[in-house]
This record gives sequence, C-alpha cells and structure tokens, in this order.
Amino acid sequence: MINQQLNEKQQDINDGDRYGDVSLIQQSQKTNRQWMKVSQINESTIGKTILLRARIHNSRMKGKIAFLVLRENWYTIQAVLTKGEQIGSQMIKYTGGINLESVVDIEAVVLQTNFKIKDCTQQVELHIQTIRVISRSITKLPFQIEEASRKIIDYYPNLQQQKQNEDQQQLIQIQDYQISQNQRLNNRVLDLRTPAKQAIFRVKSGIALLFRQFLIEKGFIEIHTPKLLGFNTKNNYCKFKLQYFNYQAFLSQSSCKYKQMCLMADFERVFEVSPAFRALHGNTHRELCEFICMDLEMVIKENYTELLDLTEELCLFILKGIEKKFDQEIQIIAKQFQFQPIKICYPIIKLTYFDAIKLLQEVGIVQSPQYYFCITNQKQLGKIVKEKYGTDFFILNRLPRENQNSCIMPCKVDPNFNLSYKFFLRGEEIASGHQRIHDPEHLNNQLKGIGQDAQLLKDYINSFRYGSYPHGGCAFGLERFLYLYFDLKNIRNASLFPRDSSRLFP
Amino acid sequence: MINQQLNEKQQDINDGDRYGDVSLIQQSQKTNRQWMKVSQINESTIGKTILLRARIHNSRMKGKIAFLVLRENWYTIQAVLTKGEQIGSQMIKYTGGINLESVVDIEAVVLQTNFKIKDCTQQVELHIQTIRVISRSITKLPFQIEEASRKIIDYYPNLQQQKQNEDQQQLIQIQDYQISQNQRLNNRVLDLRTPAKQAIFRVKSGIALLFRQFLIEKGFIEIHTPKLLGFNTKNNYCKFKLQYFNYQAFLSQSSCKYKQMCLMADFERVFEVSPAFRALHGNTHRELCEFICMDLEMVIKENYTELLDLTEELCLFILKGIEKKFDQEIQIIAKQFQFQPIKICYPIIKLTYFDAIKLLQEVGIVQSPQYYFCITNQKQLGKIVKEKYGTDFFILNRLPRENQNSCIMPCKVDPNFNLSYKFFLRGEEIASGHQRIHDPEHLNNQLKGIGQDAQLLKDYINSFRYGSYPHGGCAFGLERFLYLYFDLKNIRNASLFPRDSSRLFP
Repeated sequence: MINQQLNEKQQDINDGDRYGDVSLIQQSQKTNRQWMKVSQINESTIGKTILLRARIHNSRMKGKIAFLVLRENWYTIQAVLTKGEQIGSQMIKYTGGINLESVVDIEAVVLQTNFKIKDCTQQVELHIQTIRVISRSITKLPFQIEEASRKIIDYYPNLQQQKQNEDQQQLIQIQDYQISQNQRLNNRVLDLRTPAKQAIFRVKSGIALLFRQFLIEKGFIEIHTPKLLGFNTKNNYCKFKLQYFNYQAFLSQSSCKYKQMCLMADFERVFEVSPAFRALHGNTHRELCEFICMDLEMVIKENYTELLDLTEELCLFILKGIEKKFDQEIQIIAKQFQFQPIKICYPIIKLTYFDAIKLLQEVGIVQSPQYYFCITNQKQLGKIVKEKYGTDFFILNRLPRENQNSCIMPCKVDPNFNLSYKFFLRGEEIASGHQRIHDPEHLNNQLKGIGQDAQLLKDYINSFRYGSYPHGGCAFGLERFLYLYFDLKNIRNASLFPRDSSRLFP
Repeated sequence: MINQQLNEKQQDINDGDRYGDVSLIQQSQKTNRQWMKVSQINESTIGKTILLRARIHNSRMKGKIAFLVLRENWYTIQAVLTKGEQIGSQMIKYTGGINLESVVDIEAVVLQTNFKIKDCTQQVELHIQTIRVISRSITKLPFQIEEASRKIIDYYPNLQQQKQNEDQQQLIQIQDYQISQNQRLNNRVLDLRTPAKQAIFRVKSGIALLFRQFLIEKGFIEIHTPKLLGFNTKNNYCKFKLQYFNYQAFLSQSSCKYKQMCLMADFERVFEVSPAFRALHGNTHRELCEFICMDLEMVIKENYTELLDLTEELCLFILKGIEKKFDQEIQIIAKQFQFQPIKICYPIIKLTYFDAIKLLQEVGIVQSPQYYFCITNQKQLGKIVKEKYGTDFFILNRLPRENQNSCIMPCKVDPNFNLSYKFFLRGEEIASGHQRIHDPEHLNNQLKGIGQDAQLLKDYINSFRYGSYPHGGCAFGLERFLYLYFDLKNIRNASLFPRDSSRLFP
C-alpha cells in the first residue's frame, strides 16, 4: 500500500491549475470567454477546444480514467479524463469525487467516437483539459435524476391486471420502483430536471405564446384584470376568502365578469392569461386549486357562432402549433409518459347535447337532457367519438341550462339550453365558451335569485346599462390542455409548483 | 298645435322598416352582412353604402334634421338623418330620442364634406338610411364621455399658484370642472371609454408584448409560478394572509424565489408576467395593492453585468418599441395628460450610488451612503440628471446593502454594497435587478436572522444544495412603467380596475 502511494506521488504532475473549486462568482473580471451548450457540441465541432458549464449527470472511474456524463436540459455528452502529460492522479481523483448534479466548467477537446455512446444524446466525446466546480451538490440526493426519468408505469391498468392475477408481490415491486408523486413534488426542483419535465414546461410556455399570437393577429388586446375581488364571481365553486383592509375579499375564480366589463368599456376584443383560484377540497388527478386560465372575450355582431368559429380556429392553431414547433419535446415526453399522439378528423366533429345523449344511449347509458353529464359519461362520450370518428378533439354545443341564475345567454329556440359549448380533448373538457346576457334587465332578473351577491354585483350589472354590446367569451385551462395533450395522468405534472388542498409547498 | 300634428301625420312616410329597436341578439340567423369600423370610413369609401355598429357619442336636432356623432374607440364620425322620400318625421324623432352611449346599427351612404368637421376624427359624413338600436343606455350617465376626456389640469402647480395668488375662488372652479378620480373609478367602465384611456390600455398590452418578444428571442421561456405561498417572500413589505385549508397562506409579493428555483431546475432563462400583491395601507399616487410584475431571471456565467446589459437592452427595446408602434396612442394620451415625450441620451447614463450621492451633494442634499434614498431624493436625482445629461432614463448601480438578511449577492470589493441596480424613468424607479446568492450555506446564514421564516424557506434554500447556477434577475412594474412613461400623475390611471386600501370595487 505504502509503495503504491509513493509511486503515485512520484508520478504526480503539477496539474493544480487544471482543476479546483471556483470561488463564488461575484462580479469578478469579465474575460469574454464563450461557453458552448451541450446541444451545440457535435460532429461540426470535432477537434475544437470548447468551454462548457453543465451538471455532472453520471460519473464512474475505470482504472486511471474518469468517465463523466454531463447534462444541460435533456442533452447529455460523455467526457473523459485520462492520465497524461499534463493530468495527474490527483486531478482524476478530484474529478471522480465530485457529486452528481454539481455544476462544473469544463475545457475540453471534442473527439470523434467510433462506437455509439449509449445513453447520451451527443455522439461525440469530450477530452477534458480542465475542470472546475462552480457549485457542489450534496452527496445524498432525494432521488437520482435517471431514476426519476424512467417510464411512468400506468398504475391503473396494472392494478386491474394485478387484481386478476392476484399477484400482489409484483404490484408492490412496481410501486417501489416508481418515485411517488409526493416524493417528486416535495423535491420539485430535482424532479423538474428530468427530460420529460424540461420538455413539458417548454411546451407550456409555447401554448401560451400560440394563444397570444393567434389572438393578437385577430385584433385582440391583452388585459390584466384584478385577482382580488369584492364579490364572488362563480357561486357554484369553492372560493378563497381573505380580509382586505376593511373589506371581505375573494380570490378570483374566473376573470369572466371583468373581461365583459372591458368589452362594455369599448375594448372590443380582449384576452388574458392569468391565475385563477378555486378552493377544491378533493385532491383529484384533474384539478388544481391554482391554475392558469387563458381567457378571451369578444363582441358578437349577430350570431353566437362568430365566437365558436373563432375559438375553434384558435384551438386548432394551438394543437397544430404544438405539433409543428415542439417535435423534439413531444418525443422526449412520449419516452416517459408513453402517450398516443392526438388524432383530429376534419371537418371538426360538432355534436349538440342531444347528439351526445343519443350516442351514449346507443351503448346503454341513460343521460338526462336537463343536466350536464358527469366525468364518467364525458369520458364515455370521448371513447365513443374516438371509435366512431377517429378523433381526439370534438366540440359539444348547446348545453343544458342547469343554473337559472346564470349570466349565460339562453338559446332563443329552446330556453332549456344555453348558447354555450365545450371543446373536448381525449374525452375531457379543455375549454368552454358562452354567449353572455348583455341586456341589463334580463341579467338583473337572472342574478336576483342570488340574494345579497346581486348587490355586490351591481358594478357588473351597471356596466350594461350604458349601452351594451352583444358578446361572448371562452376560457381554456392551460394545465388541463397540457395534461390531456400529453396524457400526463395527473394534472400536477403540468404545473411547476402545484397547489391542492394538501399542498402549499414548495 | 293640432294642425301641426295633422300636418306631420299627413307628411308621414311608411319608413317603419328603417328604424326600431333590435330584439335581443341571441343566435338569430347569420346574414353574412359586413360591418365596417369607423376608422375605415374615409375618402376611399365615399359614395358607398356601409353598415356600422357604434355608440351615439353626441346627438342634436336642428329643424327636421338629426345630427349624430358616432364613436368607436377614439374614432368619431358625423351622421345625418334628413327628412326625405323614404324618411319621415317619426324616424327623425326616434333617432333624436336615443340616449347618448346607446349602441346602434346604422346603414348609411358616405358623403364628401366641403368643410372641416369639428370634433370628429373622420372627415366624411354619413347619410343615414336605416338606424336600429342594439342596446339602449340609461338617460342619466354619471358623467359625459366628453367631459371625462378633457385635459387633466395638474392640480399641484395650480394649487401652489393659487396659494400665491390667494385666489381660492378660481381653485374651487377648477376642481368642480374636473371629474374626480373617485368618480371615474366608481364608474370605471364609462371612464375607460375616453380616448386617452382607450389608448393607455392598448399601449399597456403592447408593453407586455414587447417584453415577451425580446426575451423569447433571447432564449427565455415563460413560466407560471404560484401566487398562493406557504411562506412570505418579502419581509419588509406588507402581506395579504389567508386561510388555505389547514395552512396559513400568503399572496405572492414577488415571484423572485420561484423564478430562482426554476433556474435551479435547469430552465436557464425564464420570465413571467403576473400579478403581485402588497397590502399597502397608504393610498399614494404611485403604488397599488395589486399590480403586474414583469419578471425575468437568468443564469450568469461570470459577471453580474451580463444581467445588467441584457435588461438595459430590453428596457430600451420597450421604450423605443412604444414610440415606434404607438405613435397615434401617444398623441391621444398627450391631449389629455399633456406629458413631455421621453428623452434618452446615448450611451445610457450609468451612475454608481456614490456618483448619485455626489450629484445630490452638489445641490446641497446630504445622503448617507449606507441607506438607499427616499422618494424625494430620487426625484431630485432625476431632475439633476435631466438637467445635466438631458435624459429621462438612467441606471443606478451598486446599491447600499441595507438589509443584512437579503438574498442579494454582496459586492466582492465592498460588501456594504450589493450587486444590484435600478432603472429610473422621469426620476422614479421602473425596474430593479440583482445578482442573487447561489451558495446554499451563504444563503442559509443570510436568512437565519429571519427566525421562523427560515424554516418555511427551506424548500427555497434546499434548491441550491443540489448544484446551483450563478444567476440574477430583474423585475419591472408594468403600471409603474406606463404611469411614468406618459406622466399619468396617478398610477391608478395605468390599471383597468385599481386596488388600494380603500378600493376593492369595481
């Protein structure tokens, strides 16, 4: 042992300026060095010396060689440190001892490889010249990024299969293997580093952008309505209350009434992308207590279909836009979440509520025409439409008028129905639109039943008394859209930091 | 009298299908008629018959002629209804009797005029063929749109002048003449119909768009961070508390910590445009309890100036973008708010805090280098810089480290100062940026002093323990930007539905 150590010391090279921890970056000098990105390092950079800042995704020692996998977003590249003229054992030891997920700066020469590098996106190799730690990770991560990046096993079909097989042992193994949703959410920053999450939130950014892009081209302007309200906007939803100086305030559940007031203030086409809040007690897989609403409101000249047509076009613009712009992201998400690509048939299937009831009847499901159907029947309808028409996207039109205190315009030919519609994706709603009542007396009568709230709503009703425009609006749930598009199983996978009745952290 | 009535009756024409109230627009038939906009009706449409939906802005009868001024946004056009072959007295009476601000559909022929039409933006005249009321306004408006559109008299200089003149009489007259801020806000939908407000909120939409456009080009992605927090993000600000199921929650005062966590989750450049909430008791003219924050956060490779340079470029992109895109809006706002156009000198003036103190000293103002200056000194500095350099925009760099519990990175060469800066417009702050502490132990020590909150902040601090990137961010107040750009006197003029300690409605 002693001999070996002596030997190593004798062989050691003065490579001390080639590795080490960087002191805190804190307005040091500017050097004008150029950092490359992992994604940019490929065949075209072979032979060049590059500078890179990335995380250590994986690391192993093999004899006198240190192998690293460096990661930036979902791009990975292999880097090798070999003992040589200018690199001694100490530097190799130092490199091998850096914890995974630490951030390092590496200067390296890009080399060609003659074999396929498994598990790396980049098919070239880095020959490390210098390595400096920018920030060290702690040794014990709550879970490994690789572990968290594995295929999500769909519990539900497995569970059913398990029950049939009565093979409890296997079920437990599967559950152990998976990192639980809670573990992921408790350590969200780590979970978000997985390739699928990196891709999901890039697409999320893109959806909001497509939404805005389409509407701005159509002459809409972006507005910002208050989230602190003196009245409760939706009576059939749970609300968050708070003390606001001397008032009782509510967090906005929908910007609908403010969008309408903006129209009455002569902004004829408006949209907003903003948070909405609902105090939902049940922790379902498809709802959040805080979510992003993509809202629009527009004047109607003579017919409710003006709204329906525009929002249908918008929805298809977004759906096609995702496919066109996020090809790579889609593939990465599919690796973990194994979703089937969205199918759309043209012309878009439009069903009235009556049509939908008939379709359900055909498979023996009885649905009252007076009430809107439950989530089970919604999903059933989705299945039927998929089988019959081969589409994941369809429109359900002219919905039942369940709530008589509603601000939604009833259908002229049959007042039991509203001038309202919903867009469905994979058998669940992603958007709903309505023509609103723009006649103040009509509206006042509708809202009288609510009692005290009608007083609080007087600003809203008054806004229709000074000459009002016929109008309607539509709202998309951004997380809902994302979660259904990629079949993410749980809507929490579509929120950076989800909020539900048992989660307010991180 | 009787004779006259008989005469009128005898002269009457069967024009009943040319006027009247339209029944509620409620999915009636589609006619494919095309409505024009007031702004589109000009010399090029002379001789054509057009269809228009607009408000009655003004109306008067002169003999057997009804003169209307129709308005759409800030565009106005004169319309005339003259007794003729197909138009009888009843139709003229009906038209003259429609209340101002009612919405009407008009079919009319566009005619040339040989004289300038005072008070109308469009210099052609409409010869009305049919008129139908879509929605009637009530008779008594809280105030007239014309009245609310008049020049805002700057109270403060007047007040001083008045005091000198001791002419109290005149002061009272000026105040009577003006519609108060409260009257405007109580009837916000009407106030927003004034040309200046129409223009202000179109520019507001544009600023957010310019902000996004610049950042997306620079590789940023848009994020959505929660507004319901389990911890309080800024300790020196007033917060809104609420009961969140079994937890105590706070409304977000800044998305800063979540933006940082997103960076630690490998989204290297992020931005957000979202509401922020501060429970400010004082109803100052320059602060709101709910406002829109335009936030960005980015990794830094080696120097804090990477952030400063990018945000400086962003800020100039927005300032120039407004000038370029909203020429017409600027003119319209200037008519009511009488602001001086922004002046910028190049290269941009960058002062350190020391430089600023010296400038103040030169005019006899003593400012301690240990504390950031008050609003009076800020404005003084703005004046001095304007006089000396001829610019309304400048940067103040390296600010004093007042709060030792801060997450802001101290300056290496002098730890009494932070790596932080502010952008000034017309002597007030519109944005502030900082490099943040990315070392977890350093950060932990900083936040220890806060006590219990440090425990609540553990998710935040932990996010730096798994390898962290040096980084910094900057936040712009959207309403603040707008209010200073157009010198709107009161920040409430930059919010559709402002929230302060005495206002939660409408």
